[in-house]
Amino acid sequence: MRNLRLDIAYDGTDFCGWQRQPDQDTIQGRIETAIERITGTSVNLTGSGRTDAGVHAAGQVANFKTSSPIPPANLKRALNNTLPDTIRILRAEEASPGFHARYSAVAKLYRYRILQAEVCPPHLTRFVCHYPGRLERKRIGRAAQWLEGEHDFTSFASTGDALSEDTGENRQSSSAVRTIFSSKAIWSAPLALLTYEVRGNGFLRHMVRTIVGTLIEVGRGAIDPEDVPAILEAKDRSKAGPTAPTRGLWLARVEY
Amino acid sequence: MRNLRLDIAYDGTDFCGWQRQPDQDTIQGRIETAIERITGTSVNLTGSGRTDAGVHAAGQVANFKTSSPIPPANLKRALNNTLPDTIRILRAEEASPGFHARYSAVAKLYRYRILQAEVCPPHLTRFVCHYPGRLERKRIGRAAQWLEGEHDFTSFASTGDALSEDTGENRQSSSAVRTIFSSKAIWSAPLALLTYEVRGNGFLRHMVRTIVGTLIEVGRGAIDPEDVPAILEAKDRSKAGPTAPTRGLWLARVEY
Repeated sequence: MRNLRLDIAYDGTDFCGWQRQPDQDTIQGRIETAIERITGTSVNLTGSGRTDAGVHAAGQVANFKTSSPIPPANLKRALNNTLPDTIRILRAEEASPGFHARYSAVAKLYRYRILQAEVCPPHLTRFVCHYPGRLERKRIGRAAQWLEGEHDFTSFASTGDALSEDTGENRQSSSAVRTIFSSKAIWSAPLALLTYEVRGNGFLRHMVRTIVGTLIEVGRGAIDPEDVPAILEAKDRSKAGPTAPTRGLWLARVEY
Repeated sequence: MRNLRLDIAYDGTDFCGWQRQPDQDTIQGRIETAIERITGTSVNLTGSGRTDAGVHAAGQVANFKTSSPIPPANLKRALNNTLPDTIRILRAEEASPGFHARYSAVAKLYRYRILQAEVCPPHLTRFVCHYPGRLERKRIGRAAQWLEGEHDFTSFASTGDALSEDTGENRQSSSAVRTIFSSKAIWSAPLALLTYEVRGNGFLRHMVRTIVGTLIEVGRGAIDPEDVPAILEAKDRSKAGPTAPTRGLWLARVEY
């Protein structure tokens, strides 16, 4: 059996997330159906991790086993002709037999975009979280730094759902300990865009959005930046801020 | 009666164009309905010109008369709270009594975006025309220049529809003569984006899209750049290229 790797971008707005579910329009479901139509055989597509309904990807990675002889370039073209415009195959290539989109991943990069302009232009409305209120960016930057390193992120994971959605799922499914390699906020004045960028070895369910919701609370003065270590320490979801909306979140890159 | 001016941006993808039509979801219709709900009185909203279904605007301008005492800033806020995210009021302000969004306009700027990348990223798919084929940009640039100046644009207007959709409508409704102040193609290598930018005193129906369809023919070698004067001269729609798709077209600015 061949092992094929797909690099995928999507606008998650109109889908019920990555993961195939009965009677739901999902990204995994769409791609599996398209592969089955093209190759004539059923497949199990493995993604690097789930993304929630409304979350976007610029660099999701998936793999599947197939005995079809179709060349990767032809598969890519056929998939892009079959899939909706909102799901694009950026690359298709042969992977080594042991390559597994989830278990082989060593890091992921997420970006969350907050538009600080008074009015959100229509071409950005699907892709950013519009927050025109005042945010103190220095405070956000200080709070973001506290998240770097190895921590138990229970306080930043969905209540009652300790399952990670991500690269960590296999290695440490019962643990909420993850390592964040970098966590920073980048401000683009001309675009009035605050981008939170976080790279780590795995992320719990809703973790990035809960971090962002907390950073917004920090930015508007409701949480002190220096309280972040105590929030981590507490291992209590109620100590962190609300979960930020999905539309600003992008899975930017998966590293192997 | 007060005369209020609105500056408007929209993602035209999901609307049947600017102009109000019975039983159709249009941008003019949406804004009129929203103003009526907010002020409690019926209004006639005058746009600077129609845009077709699927065409976007970054700077459409409209005006309406009202006896409502609502301050412009409150009206803007209330409209943005009422309208869908895909229609945004960028500014609302008092205009002089004689200001008329269509008749007072002296120039319009349109931009048309052609994405030359192999795959169109999902966040651009609603807003660019994806043309991955080879285009010779120098040829396009030469052809674009021939359109500058005062010309009869019959060859670039929709067949059987001499009505202009634009600033010229009042002043010269029976004529297809328009003045193009500038006409140029701008290449952004990092974005693989070819932007055609045209500024003129008025535009016939489908004129920008027919120009772009012709420029694509020039770029791929099917029409010679030096044939543009003869195409203008012919006053025959069949001599120009096809009408390019709506999704790449933006009404960028109206000047008064």
